[in-house]
Amino acid sequence: MQNFLNLCKSTIGEENVLLDAQQQAPYLQDWRQREVGKALAILRPASTEQVAKLVQLCIDYAVPIVPQGGNTGLVFGSIPDHSGKAVVISLQRLNKIRQIDVANNTITVDAGCLLQNIQAEAEQVDMLFPLSLASEGSCSIGGNLSTNAGGTAVLRYGNARELCLGLEVVTANAEIWNGLRGLRKDNTGYDLRDLFIGAEGTLGIITGVVLKLFPKPRSYGTAFISLTSIGHAVKLLTLAKQHCHANLTGFELINSVSLELVHQHFPQYQRIFQHTSQFYVLLELSSYESEEKAYQQLEQLITAAFEAEFITDAVIANSIAQAKNCWALRESISSAQAKEGKNIKHDISLPISVVADFVDDAGQCLEQAFPGCRMVTFGHLGDGNLHFNVSPPIGDVHEFFLTHQAQINRIVHDKTHQYGGSISAEHGIGTLKKEELTRYKSSVELQLMHTIKRAMDPHNIMNPGKIL
Amino acid sequence: MQNFLNLCKSTIGEENVLLDAQQQAPYLQDWRQREVGKALAILRPASTEQVAKLVQLCIDYAVPIVPQGGNTGLVFGSIPDHSGKAVVISLQRLNKIRQIDVANNTITVDAGCLLQNIQAEAEQVDMLFPLSLASEGSCSIGGNLSTNAGGTAVLRYGNARELCLGLEVVTANAEIWNGLRGLRKDNTGYDLRDLFIGAEGTLGIITGVVLKLFPKPRSYGTAFISLTSIGHAVKLLTLAKQHCHANLTGFELINSVSLELVHQHFPQYQRIFQHTSQFYVLLELSSYESEEKAYQQLEQLITAAFEAEFITDAVIANSIAQAKNCWALRESISSAQAKEGKNIKHDISLPISVVADFVDDAGQCLEQAFPGCRMVTFGHLGDGNLHFNVSPPIGDVHEFFLTHQAQINRIVHDKTHQYGGSISAEHGIGTLKKEELTRYKSSVELQLMHTIKRAMDPHNIMNPGKIL
Repeated sequence: MQNFLNLCKSTIGEENVLLDAQQQAPYLQDWRQREVGKALAILRPASTEQVAKLVQLCIDYAVPIVPQGGNTGLVFGSIPDHSGKAVVISLQRLNKIRQIDVANNTITVDAGCLLQNIQAEAEQVDMLFPLSLASEGSCSIGGNLSTNAGGTAVLRYGNARELCLGLEVVTANAEIWNGLRGLRKDNTGYDLRDLFIGAEGTLGIITGVVLKLFPKPRSYGTAFISLTSIGHAVKLLTLAKQHCHANLTGFELINSVSLELVHQHFPQYQRIFQHTSQFYVLLELSSYESEEKAYQQLEQLITAAFEAEFITDAVIANSIAQAKNCWALRESISSAQAKEGKNIKHDISLPISVVADFVDDAGQCLEQAFPGCRMVTFGHLGDGNLHFNVSPPIGDVHEFFLTHQAQINRIVHDKTHQYGGSISAEHGIGTLKKEELTRYKSSVELQLMHTIKRAMDPHNIMNPGKIL
Repeated sequence: MQNFLNLCKSTIGEENVLLDAQQQAPYLQDWRQREVGKALAILRPASTEQVAKLVQLCIDYAVPIVPQGGNTGLVFGSIPDHSGKAVVISLQRLNKIRQIDVANNTITVDAGCLLQNIQAEAEQVDMLFPLSLASEGSCSIGGNLSTNAGGTAVLRYGNARELCLGLEVVTANAEIWNGLRGLRKDNTGYDLRDLFIGAEGTLGIITGVVLKLFPKPRSYGTAFISLTSIGHAVKLLTLAKQHCHANLTGFELINSVSLELVHQHFPQYQRIFQHTSQFYVLLELSSYESEEKAYQQLEQLITAAFEAEFITDAVIANSIAQAKNCWALRESISSAQAKEGKNIKHDISLPISVVADFVDDAGQCLEQAFPGCRMVTFGHLGDGNLHFNVSPPIGDVHEFFLTHQAQINRIVHDKTHQYGGSISAEHGIGTLKKEELTRYKSSVELQLMHTIKRAMDPHNIMNPGKIL
């Protein structure tokens, strides 16, 4: 291994082969600080060619590779296991904006670019790169694509997958595939791009990407709405699509428990309503015309929703500050839940038409098994994506409650599967949901995935043990 | 082989194993009647299970399979070769609408459903399935997905790939993969869906699909615009995106030669302008509000384009009849060119920012090599997709001209490649562009494709000889 490390050093410079425990630490711990892995070394190449050379060395010395971007993943996909045999190849130094092509509405960047920097580059030419996540200041686009990240604008612009036109990848055979195409149409063979996207670094290392840009909306309209049931929220969604179409850019569900936790732990944010309600929807429109236009369209929608008796109350934000307050309430739910204590998270998606039935059904099962447990239900309802989290009954001993995690996962995931849903809507599989995957995927599908993995990574060095 | 055919007959019924030459004919000839293949038999299963059983028989007896939908492909991907060893598995009898889920905005159908029938089903629930092609009355959705079809609405709604949420596939191992998910987000492993989409039946047979539906626009605004250069057309496109955003649903380029050919061969369609111009754009907006709104938005755009001196003249359609006339002019170009005589077709795409330079450059090269040749340039400029066709000089002997096809293909495809474009934007590869593919794809990419093909079709029975 000393030989291997020396060759790494001569490839990328001694200072970019991190061996010291303190230097290694941030690369080994997962984002939520639940898990710490071990690594032979952290390697920090500065170019695609260097990545390819390192992969070749790893093949030669049979060293497993964990590709890593901003290390903000939630399923332990970007940290090594406890064996200490793997190297982490960090893409942090591949962080250049390569080209921006305004007429083609594309930007080409290194995979290690921070999402926030890409958003800012687009902004500078008065355009929008719509991918937006809580971790956008830390996550990198290569990681976003490797996990097919979601976020708050999927309803209008799609997942990370839909925002990518081309890729550059170092394959598991240490070759560089240049698929950096800025084309809207290209039917010349198999869709390799979408195979690498969402593969969590198990098939190759994404080193460069071509992304779509969009004209920047001129203004936003934001409303906070109260409702008595999820069924009504789904009806409101249908109505909003009919009224606002592509202008509808946000549709977030928040249940009563979630909002009260936020108010309890973040008293700095203003209450929207004096009364409480079973459910709330945070709805956002984008307008390419004027602020008045967005406001007017929102008003018409809300009037129609009142008339149809889908909603019980609504406030349209009158200022940017008010709109920000609405989003802060939504975005503080996870933190509020963490402050309340440990809890059990799920990241599921469902056909929108069955969301209401699912929430009732799964909620009842959980209440039966764990009387008094609190359903912290929120998420991107516009995409059928719920963060269907469970907090313990008030006053319960959290540690005790957590011993039932497996049983609660089982109830929620079994129900999700029964309703035709997915047990990982936007977070991926990593190692955290690997066991679950084998329970819910058909053997035909698992077999196809294994076949692809074996064929494309014959040395089994690309993030082994993740997903499959 | 008699044994094999007997087993096929007992699986799907004797009447669905076509052996008679006359009965076989429509399945063996390509859509443009340039090529006729031979088959051992045409097999017409009626269910996914029957397809799987037939694939198993083909494995057992080493019989190659050519999957076929509406047989409207343009690159010989859906007809067998001349050996007579293959069977065609036609999906025509798998033609049921399985389910329509209005709240989820999805429709689930058999792969053999005609595109037009799916459009009509969506219409019945006041929704839109936006895929739209010249052959929509004959092509099937399975074929559309296997070739990742494009068409006229890609600018707004994406290719066939982007319109599909889930698939059911009979694999090359005769297993049924049920991936019929109606989910907007699902990050549970490799993206098998997009691997089968665009694979032209070489990795498996698509038997069922879940498609996205959209709210139906209330009205359309259509304009026919004259311009002096493609550079101006690209500037108009940028302006139109900024003004109209998601309302911009059509942006078709037509050059002077193309339009004059239409007027010559289809005198029943009205001339829009008395003058001629180097280029024209057919521009379409969709509005979810009112006809007035669409008209008003179109008028504002055209005023701005005049002021910027991007365009020289414009007519906004005042009636549905006028709008239809505009589209008829666009859609008759291929037929007009056929009536004029044989010609050489290209289906290319480019980054939109280089389209103007490419057209100048490639045009000059062709003029130099073949003085007087006529450039019939038209296509979906909004997607960077041009049908960059070449007709012989007036009075030239067509047959002589056609002997230069390879040289002309070479000039156009070399230039396309040089400008970062694709030699097959929406038609696929089949056997027609197989040779070309090896010229322009990197060995790394070809090798990856071969690796996937070998892994997923170990018996090499799925449409062998197509693409690779």
